[in-house]
Amino acid sequence: MKVKAYAAKSPSSPLEPYEFDRRETKADDVVIQIQFCGICHSDIHTALGDWGSFSHPCVPGHEIVGHVIAVGKKVKKFKVGEAVGVGCMVDSCGKCENCKSNEEQYCTKGAVYTYQSTEYDKKSYTKGGYSTHIVVKDKFVLKIKKGLPLDRVAPLLCAGITTYSPLKRYGVKKGSKVGVIGLGGLGHMAIKLARAMGAEVTVFSTSPEKEMDAKKLGAKNFVVTRDLKNFLPFSKKLDLIIDTASAAHDYAPYLNTLRLGGTHVLIGVPADPTQFRGGPLIQGRRNLTGTLIGGLKETQKMLDFCADKKIFADVELIKAEQINEAYKRTIKGDVKYRFVIDAKTF
Amino acid sequence: MKVKAYAAKSPSSPLEPYEFDRRETKADDVVIQIQFCGICHSDIHTALGDWGSFSHPCVPGHEIVGHVIAVGKKVKKFKVGEAVGVGCMVDSCGKCENCKSNEEQYCTKGAVYTYQSTEYDKKSYTKGGYSTHIVVKDKFVLKIKKGLPLDRVAPLLCAGITTYSPLKRYGVKKGSKVGVIGLGGLGHMAIKLARAMGAEVTVFSTSPEKEMDAKKLGAKNFVVTRDLKNFLPFSKKLDLIIDTASAAHDYAPYLNTLRLGGTHVLIGVPADPTQFRGGPLIQGRRNLTGTLIGGLKETQKMLDFCADKKIFADVELIKAEQINEAYKRTIKGDVKYRFVIDAKTF
Repeated sequence: MKVKAYAAKSPSSPLEPYEFDRRETKADDVVIQIQFCGICHSDIHTALGDWGSFSHPCVPGHEIVGHVIAVGKKVKKFKVGEAVGVGCMVDSCGKCENCKSNEEQYCTKGAVYTYQSTEYDKKSYTKGGYSTHIVVKDKFVLKIKKGLPLDRVAPLLCAGITTYSPLKRYGVKKGSKVGVIGLGGLGHMAIKLARAMGAEVTVFSTSPEKEMDAKKLGAKNFVVTRDLKNFLPFSKKLDLIIDTASAAHDYAPYLNTLRLGGTHVLIGVPADPTQFRGGPLIQGRRNLTGTLIGGLKETQKMLDFCADKKIFADVELIKAEQINEAYKRTIKGDVKYRFVIDAKTF
Repeated sequence: MKVKAYAAKSPSSPLEPYEFDRRETKADDVVIQIQFCGICHSDIHTALGDWGSFSHPCVPGHEIVGHVIAVGKKVKKFKVGEAVGVGCMVDSCGKCENCKSNEEQYCTKGAVYTYQSTEYDKKSYTKGGYSTHIVVKDKFVLKIKKGLPLDRVAPLLCAGITTYSPLKRYGVKKGSKVGVIGLGGLGHMAIKLARAMGAEVTVFSTSPEKEMDAKKLGAKNFVVTRDLKNFLPFSKKLDLIIDTASAAHDYAPYLNTLRLGGTHVLIGVPADPTQFRGGPLIQGRRNLTGTLIGGLKETQKMLDFCADKKIFADVELIKAEQINEAYKRTIKGDVKYRFVIDAKTF
């Protein structure tokens, strides 16, 4: 099937209109007409070659929502017309310990990511959601409940699951005290989800002008991180920190806001290393850990949780021709809080 | 009570004979005639002023074993003649959340350490186990089962509990795969304890000549860390790493030996910071954490476990006059694996 898309032909070229063929529908495939696709910061890193160069056209996009227009003959879970989503993965081995534990993102053979990943046939490169259609193995397609604003659902497929997973894993519940570092696409979802689970949220940001927005989103406290003395009132107070910052930063002042046994979860991947001392981990038996999206089962749970609680991303809807401009604005942090591409405009 | 001891009068002076008065026995005090006291690396850092200067004589020592020679009138748990131990703490507030959870080492008011710590009267400085006697509140005195080699029990009070606590916390059991970084006082206890819990132990060391000793102590595998390719066979294999190294080191190659969700526990406190990147934490949802000794209840459990399993430290018994020489040798790593002072020689 011929599809319209936007692609970066090389790391140095802007994204531009591009046409290519999606694969023939296999027995376990779902064919999706894409309606919306979010712009994740990973798309930008990939398309700009920050994470490695590439010589074939790169079609980013892993926050995909749309409708089923055809299914393979063995597919029973999905019907034509249903609203569905696709996140960061489109395949995994299905046989390793981690796949069997519904942690496909940690597949020991290596999950196949939605774009710029080599498929198990070892020759095809995956192409993502900046396109009119996508063909995906049924196991990697998520159900979306009826009647939801699909443009605002799209970012849940990456920003939503990435923040939901650690909040659940570390048992956030009514009365938990959760810190969120950075108020961008991931950060704004972390606030909404933590609030929905009953937590009191403290936002850490370099930008004092974001305080009003953080509080509108549900944060109770706001810490301007430029001045270390602003951290003092929160010493040993928090249970969990969700760290979405993408610039290198010293973890120590944040770790010191955690109570005994508290956990600081890295989601952002700063390009530069940071200077690190173990003291704050030892003094307070604190944990520094990381998390990578979530498995399919957990992603479905997250989508259902968000549907029930009416949690959606705050988005700015754009046309395909605005992608390059949206990239520039995302890099500057000038978006509240996620650009979403209208797939009709490819 | 006048007691004999060894003290550093200032950070620049060697330890030398010293006499001082222990406090009058209070109602909840236990008076202990010390038999043996281990030399912990913390003693050396403190006496040399690495962790801050001091202007009053410093009597180190927090790996103390001896016999009860008197008790205060309210003490019911101990009788004259019993073998007892004292570890790193001699008091805590007893009222905070952490004290109530038997985690006195994390007392929010601040535990009183066995030496070089200010008591709650805000004027006395504690003096440690390099002395003939010590007077300690009953709650902070541990029971030692009959018939044990007390010189080899002494190091359990710090090196033993510090390694036992994370092994237990992270559920080490038969079949667990445990890494131990560094083969010194802490490292050799970590091997013995992990083996006693049923784990397969991999030792990481900069010194190839330590392989035989590591294996004698119970390690199955030995990785010479100078060459990164030696880590490769252990990629994603370990459940837990106990990191006793006291020199700054890159955590990444060790983190990459952990399976999904594995934990790297810092025990050593390198003086210098290290360069750190979050990637290995995110790719594998690994945890970097720390631990500080253990609470009283857990320390008693550890002593009982070691008595049952016949686990004792490997020690080199010395006279008081050899302390300065022992410090030099400990700094060089020239000890298998703990110096213990015979208190009769003070």
